[in-house]
Amino acid sequence: MRAEELHHPTGRVLVVVCDKGEDPVSVVGDALHRYGLCAGRVTAVGGFREAEVGWFDPERADYRRIPVREQVEVLSLLGDVAARDGQPVLHVHAVLGRSDGSTVGGHLLGAKVWPTLEVIVTEVAPELAKQVDPGTGLALIAGPGR
Amino acid sequence: MRAEELHHPTGRVLVVVCDKGEDPVSVVGDALHRYGLCAGRVTAVGGFREAEVGWFDPERADYRRIPVREQVEVLSLLGDVAARDGQPVLHVHAVLGRSDGSTVGGHLLGAKVWPTLEVIVTEVAPELAKQVDPGTGLALIAGPGR
Amino acid sequence: MRAEELHHPTGRVLVVVCDKGEDPVSVVGDALHRYGLCAGRVTAVGGFREAEVGWFDPERADYRRIPVREQVEVLSLLGDVAARDGQPVLHVHAVLGRSDGSTVGGHLLGAKVWPTLEVIVTEVAPELAKQVDPGTGLALIAGPGR
Repeated sequence: MRAEELHHPTGRVLVVVCDKGEDPVSVVGDALHRYGLCAGRVTAVGGFREAEVGWFDPERADYRRIPVREQVEVLSLLGDVAARDGQPVLHVHAVLGRSDGSTVGGHLLGAKVWPTLEVIVTEVAPELAKQVDPGTGLALIAGPGR
Repeated sequence: MRAEELHHPTGRVLVVVCDKGEDPVSVVGDALHRYGLCAGRVTAVGGFREAEVGWFDPERADYRRIPVREQVEVLSLLGDVAARDGQPVLHVHAVLGRSDGSTVGGHLLGAKVWPTLEVIVTEVAPELAKQVDPGTGLALIAGPGR
Repeated sequence: MRAEELHHPTGRVLVVVCDKGEDPVSVVGDALHRYGLCAGRVTAVGGFREAEVGWFDPERADYRRIPVREQVEVLSLLGDVAARDGQPVLHVHAVLGRSDGSTVGGHLLGAKVWPTLEVIVTEVAPELAKQVDPGTGLALIAGPGR
């Protein structure tokens, strides 16, 4: 893992480069904790040699796990960071591209990077707070009206 | 609808959280009007219980409507805001993920959120102006050369 | 090509609007060179009348080329800019949507825009440096640990 905190007139930006074999969910989560970044937009570009994505099943109130066991381009990796109990929580979804250009995607549960994943996290506020939604058990961003 | 305007060294950011059953196109559009945000980048992560996306048919100069009648992950929701006649216009495309990880997408015409949609709009300028393109009837961002 | 450099409290933003028939890879690359923007996040929304995307084949250490010969919505176009030998290098992946809502995507090798492509590049640092990875021959962002 290599992470860089940039101080720039545009505010705080975290650039995280995941190396071969690393799991971006844990690597980016670690970087967020290390730098205490609790509200941000996350995007990334790169590739995975395998991944697991999820579809949230409303009836079971849990993720259905979808394994992806091949080299894929990370076509889109998009999400946000918010705080639960003062700690940053990463919420990202991914669209992955197979060798024939077909796509598969879901909530990113885990992956092995190959050859790289270039992640940019831009801070948008000191903190966005998450609260557990009683209906689903998911931690969702709580707006000012809650 | 719950919307929050954040003033931060990085500039103006709008965080909009759409609740269950809300239509993000109208909710985000309302938030843009309320805060007068007329130039920005839009991203989001969350889920829909149904949606309608569109493919612009060059021959008919209109959108072909593609209904999505199932719970989907919002894998990517990406677009921009620009002004037409001084009012903010939202232009977003979406990639949606089904229970088996397969994807469907298009220009986002409407949707019903479930369980949440977390939208971040970062202002990039006071205003980006749109003009109607005579060839298609679409309002497109007009650059300085026009 | 129409490109605009915006000076705003949020930092430097490049808005590039690609017109009908233009190739976004060369147009955006030209804009990055003209303005010397060497570290940024890239997003876009619009349409292509044709495109070529790629899947990086680990065995051949080269892109497998996937032609897309139809009008598609640009559902997601996401990536970054970093510097190689002091010059900006664009790295973007795309998810494209066909008339039935099905998707195809990959590393964006080239495309012909129709009717527009609205690109936003936000600068995140003065420079992110790329180095050639010996294992793949690809130029990857080099973090502080390298």
